[in-house]
Amino acid sequence: MTRVAIGIDLGGTDIKGGLVSEDGAIIGKFIKSTEGHLGGRKVVDRIGDLIQEIMDSEAMKGRKDDLVGVGIGSPGLIDHEKGAITRPVNIPGWDYWINVREIFQERLGLFTWADNDANVGALGEALYGKGKGKKVVMVLTLGTGVGGGIVSNGEVFHGFAGFAGELGHIMVNPNGPVCGCGNEGCLEAYASATAIAKYAQERIRVEHIPTILKDMAKDNDGKLTSKMVHDAALKGDAVALQTIERAGIHLGIGIASLTVSFNPEIICIGGGAAEMGDMLFDYARKEMEKRVFFHSYYQTPIVKAQLGNDAGLVGAAGLALTGSS
Amino acid sequence: MTRVAIGIDLGGTDIKGGLVSEDGAIIGKFIKSTEGHLGGRKVVDRIGDLIQEIMDSEAMKGRKDDLVGVGIGSPGLIDHEKGAITRPVNIPGWDYWINVREIFQERLGLFTWADNDANVGALGEALYGKGKGKKVVMVLTLGTGVGGGIVSNGEVFHGFAGFAGELGHIMVNPNGPVCGCGNEGCLEAYASATAIAKYAQERIRVEHIPTILKDMAKDNDGKLTSKMVHDAALKGDAVALQTIERAGIHLGIGIASLTVSFNPEIICIGGGAAEMGDMLFDYARKEMEKRVFFHSYYQTPIVKAQLGNDAGLVGAAGLALTGSS
Repeated sequence: MTRVAIGIDLGGTDIKGGLVSEDGAIIGKFIKSTEGHLGGRKVVDRIGDLIQEIMDSEAMKGRKDDLVGVGIGSPGLIDHEKGAITRPVNIPGWDYWINVREIFQERLGLFTWADNDANVGALGEALYGKGKGKKVVMVLTLGTGVGGGIVSNGEVFHGFAGFAGELGHIMVNPNGPVCGCGNEGCLEAYASATAIAKYAQERIRVEHIPTILKDMAKDNDGKLTSKMVHDAALKGDAVALQTIERAGIHLGIGIASLTVSFNPEIICIGGGAAEMGDMLFDYARKEMEKRVFFHSYYQTPIVKAQLGNDAGLVGAAGLALTGSS
Repeated sequence: MTRVAIGIDLGGTDIKGGLVSEDGAIIGKFIKSTEGHLGGRKVVDRIGDLIQEIMDSEAMKGRKDDLVGVGIGSPGLIDHEKGAITRPVNIPGWDYWINVREIFQERLGLFTWADNDANVGALGEALYGKGKGKKVVMVLTLGTGVGGGIVSNGEVFHGFAGFAGELGHIMVNPNGPVCGCGNEGCLEAYASATAIAKYAQERIRVEHIPTILKDMAKDNDGKLTSKMVHDAALKGDAVALQTIERAGIHLGIGIASLTVSFNPEIICIGGGAAEMGDMLFDYARKEMEKRVFFHSYYQTPIVKAQLGNDAGLVGAAGLALTGSS
């Protein structure tokens, strides 16, 4: 018998669902629009519909007895102990608690776990990606912001009220650029895909610097993306390379602080900017090596996360498969 | 029946021992010189002698059946899973592993736990001091260096190889002063008692600044201490007040980063510099409030640790009383 679970990745546009086996393999993928404008209760109904659809699917045939439950990864504030969700970003108006555990227990007879999407993505990578078999796994996701999560012995480290692991908001420079959180010099303000594009954008405003980024921006309504920075860097563009160096150095400063704090066995970097791979990571590794003193620390590997967009789905299923509350 | 344990605090000069009850009360205190020059094996013999002495003491009478074991807090590298110690600072030459669990099991028939002294001090404060009853407790000790520890659900957070919680070495300014670890801008380089004294010492070198610290130093062979800085600040000395402000602001920066990482329920500050109390903490609180965005974060209390020098002793006993390995 191979145990299976249903993982739900709640997004602003779509609700993604997956039937996932205990080795992290996705047996089937399912999707439904979120329709957030209908309000939180209706969205939860639609999650229930999707779960029902998965239970009635071909993929589920012969596996009903092996189904351990449902895990949900959601933006917003999550009471992971109770299994309740409120204020998911991108679903305006859902500003009240909904206990999905109680609702799906009653409607579907399935035990349901919930956690925030950053933690769930980290759990996915820790259990089934590059963190597999490791004791303490740190995940950093360099996307619109910088998300993070710490998974210790297969469980998310939640802290007192569930707010641990907001790793994008550790400070790497007390006088650095303003971050989306209102603070200055957060890791996110240097190393998110957004921050990388923003810095390059500022650089190309300077008239006399020769860089192909100017033309790339022109062809895209004047807007740069972190992918363009990567592409330009691959062609040897100096401004693009300097932009990545700056992000990498500050990533390394952040990782050094996080490493002496959590002593992870492995650090997995995901999100759009992680596509830069060693071009970005090598700066971080060099900076980290300079800044940590324990032998074991500077040997801590920094690797590209493996699961990409599926991390949330398998991580959500992982909540159920590991029985984390 | 009240369970009791023997706590051992191994220092470079003395081995302190205590019989501690499960509510953290010290029933009896014992002490023996370390005699580190005799080598590690001899020191361990002496620890065994002290434990035997405690077991034969008046304090132990009628409690033998309630004794759950021995906990040892030691400097150096500790294999807390195996119960082994190597390279304790201040005991030169002890550069090999000694498994105290096996040794005391055989000699005394007692199960023995070991952990590093910073973790053990944090555990003591978490279990029996200001952290009592709290879910996630962060302890920072502002002494010669800055020690730290994270206790989650009554257990020390160790990370992968036992090196988590080196909280004095998170960076608060990437271009800050050189730290004892070789890095720049660590929390320790700003907020340890040593760093506070050192900064004041640099300030009084400047000829034209009027400050009573100059006379205080003169009366002490030219050397300032953090206590002198505190005393001068209490008298309104501007340089002393600025010195404390600087330490407090950087303490707050560090605490902000640690808070978004670990989300502690309470932050306990111990060590010599913590004697400054709110004079120091208020700067840290203000800085933290500015730098963290979650409601729950800036409500996280920063308090003076309660147990002082006893934290190590009761924390060591706490290792045994909670059965942490």
